[in-house]
Amino acid sequence: MCDKIHYHKINVGIIGFGTVGSGTAHLLLENSAIIKSRVGIPINLAKIADIDITTDRGVNVPKEILTTNADEIIEDPNIQIVVETVGGCGFAKDIIIKAIKAGKNVVTANKELIAKHGKELLPLAKEYGVDFMFEASVGGGIPIIGPLKTSLAGNKILEIIGIVNGTTNYILTEMKEKGADFEKVLSVAQAMGYAEANPTADVDGFDATYKLAILSSIAYNSRADYEGIYREGIRNIGIEDIKYAEEMGYVIKLLAISNEVEGKIQGRVHPTLVPKSHPLASVNGVMNAIYIKANGVQESMYFGPGAGSVATGSAIVGDIIESARNVIANNTSRIPCKCISYKPMASIDDLSCKNYIRMKAKDLPGCISRISGIFAKNDVSLESIIQKFTESGYATIIWLTHEAPEKLINKSLEEIDALDVVEKISNRIRVL
Amino acid sequence: MCDKIHYHKINVGIIGFGTVGSGTAHLLLENSAIIKSRVGIPINLAKIADIDITTDRGVNVPKEILTTNADEIIEDPNIQIVVETVGGCGFAKDIIIKAIKAGKNVVTANKELIAKHGKELLPLAKEYGVDFMFEASVGGGIPIIGPLKTSLAGNKILEIIGIVNGTTNYILTEMKEKGADFEKVLSVAQAMGYAEANPTADVDGFDATYKLAILSSIAYNSRADYEGIYREGIRNIGIEDIKYAEEMGYVIKLLAISNEVEGKIQGRVHPTLVPKSHPLASVNGVMNAIYIKANGVQESMYFGPGAGSVATGSAIVGDIIESARNVIANNTSRIPCKCISYKPMASIDDLSCKNYIRMKAKDLPGCISRISGIFAKNDVSLESIIQKFTESGYATIIWLTHEAPEKLINKSLEEIDALDVVEKISNRIRVL
Repeated sequence: MCDKIHYHKINVGIIGFGTVGSGTAHLLLENSAIIKSRVGIPINLAKIADIDITTDRGVNVPKEILTTNADEIIEDPNIQIVVETVGGCGFAKDIIIKAIKAGKNVVTANKELIAKHGKELLPLAKEYGVDFMFEASVGGGIPIIGPLKTSLAGNKILEIIGIVNGTTNYILTEMKEKGADFEKVLSVAQAMGYAEANPTADVDGFDATYKLAILSSIAYNSRADYEGIYREGIRNIGIEDIKYAEEMGYVIKLLAISNEVEGKIQGRVHPTLVPKSHPLASVNGVMNAIYIKANGVQESMYFGPGAGSVATGSAIVGDIIESARNVIANNTSRIPCKCISYKPMASIDDLSCKNYIRMKAKDLPGCISRISGIFAKNDVSLESIIQKFTESGYATIIWLTHEAPEKLINKSLEEIDALDVVEKISNRIRVL
Repeated sequence: MCDKIHYHKINVGIIGFGTVGSGTAHLLLENSAIIKSRVGIPINLAKIADIDITTDRGVNVPKEILTTNADEIIEDPNIQIVVETVGGCGFAKDIIIKAIKAGKNVVTANKELIAKHGKELLPLAKEYGVDFMFEASVGGGIPIIGPLKTSLAGNKILEIIGIVNGTTNYILTEMKEKGADFEKVLSVAQAMGYAEANPTADVDGFDATYKLAILSSIAYNSRADYEGIYREGIRNIGIEDIKYAEEMGYVIKLLAISNEVEGKIQGRVHPTLVPKSHPLASVNGVMNAIYIKANGVQESMYFGPGAGSVATGSAIVGDIIESARNVIANNTSRIPCKCISYKPMASIDDLSCKNYIRMKAKDLPGCISRISGIFAKNDVSLESIIQKFTESGYATIIWLTHEAPEKLINKSLEEIDALDVVEKISNRIRVL
């Protein structure tokens, strides 16, 4: 503890000079004077590694700091902090392990890696006494992991409800505002760069499960397994659902929700009807927001851009600054992993919530009575019903149930689906 | 640096057992196991001092830790962290100075004290190498000072726009929703405990200037003088203003706004027309929110309860936890005051913004032409005009100007007021 080094500057190496890496480099250079004033000494962008060091990223970095060899960063004894912005779980994982073992403090935006391999990487960082920070992995530039670990650390977290995927929030917002259907909006989003050519990670909810697993692990002090999170994407959301939800006072959002139920973590990602009065209801376009219920602060929400080059760079540079402070004070691994308890993941079957159900039925006498009879038989009580005549002989019926256990909703839907008067159960969306 | 002590627990003393003090005590006790897991060792509520130790605060604290003598806390060598929840600038200031000089780390919610005496207290804490933390002084339980100092520290902050006073936000929300006037809503708010018997600190904007001074000092790394912040309360807001604003697509909020203009800090607290699409527009009732523009994160917003016993306690306990981590690591004063530059406060005269102006004029030919002629002569261009006939012979005219310098707006209003056709300039409200 007595070998405290007096640093004159902190050296940072960035591995991965893509969107996030270049945003990070931009901020480190652009705000260097401000950053120095807040840290006490300069933070120096010492090296950047990428397989492509010729493409112009619009950031004016000296040519001599560019390298194609990541090891030049990991093995440089003068570099204290390594930023990984490569992405994925292959090379990124390898270099992070190497960096930790070389005694480097690591900052990353890699949600997939943290969600899938955090259980190995975090204890390793603790073992080597280095910082392993990942504020940028959830909510882009929004400070959320920092607040959970510090300002909110005196709270028992009761529930996390997040809009954590900008692509799907953009698509749902556009569907609502333009009245265009999912496929059409998706292709526009792809053309604008808001959605990937292969959109499955976003639209099928995988990305959101990674982020929810990360937030939940911190919030409940237990490793939340992303594979135990119920997942349902937005492909099945129709324009009609958005319209009927609107009529009933709701907007449809892809939410990532978790809470603790009898010692288990209940995690779920699915389209959700959100009351218009809820703070999350007005979070539109590519913006993200995380709403947190806790026994101290009661409720709080964190809003901002969930992605983007400098926005995500902002979170990375924030982590760099915190780690630099720790390096200077010989206090790295200041807030190590606190997943000290093992709480299993609850099944979606343990959930009880309100449901929105849209179906197409034959316009025959007794139809409503037969369907509602099945709900009644299964102890599912109803909050409201809307019936619309869509085409001759058929009606669209929207049911809004009161809170009911998942199993009883599923059983009711199975039985209703078997009725001859019911043409099709078009959609079922959970309600916040 | 080698005299690192191995702590088995961290002892906390609370001075002031009122609303915030008891909320803090409640959370420390209620969440002790969670707090221990996040800090590594227990945080022990060792003593509470108050002049009144007989009233039941609804918190089950052992009688033997209560004392009427604050010195018993300050002079206790086993106490590492002192929480000041007395309020005001008299006794509170004295005990904080004593505590700092005794080597205690200090946590407070006292915005008035930080705004008025931070310039003495913060350097003193730095000199004695102790933590001096005040997350609870702005936005109650909302993490905002922490994020500014850590996650957002890589940003140049461009603008702060806050709803930081719950009382006035409650009043404005009620006026809008119930259509009741200021005086009536104020008396209801007083009866419900949302407003003080002497409401001036809230409704005249003093409280908001303290909070804005604190946030601005951190954001711009310069001591922002609260006396240099332009201040205007909500007493002059009429029901008509709220209605006309609504018609034009705005809501009226008491905002605390600051930014940097040519090396100066422009700070202002005044009622403001906020476009309905802005994230702050839907922050209602006693809730607070702080919206931050910065060159990294672009935009972000922090929302939650701006007051309340356990909500404010949440912020205090967060600070206690951070300070405890610093104590354990022998790293107190980890993020000392960074007000390293001196930026003077800009005058409101340097402002240029849109304005809403409501006036009562005689319904005579040429009236609009004469008034608009004065705006034109003063280079104030107009975005929209609404004219309503209120009583026989008189009209209410609402002008929405384009962005114009404060001086030209004031000069125009002076000249318009002198017109014989103008009965009264009823209100002028700046637009975000």
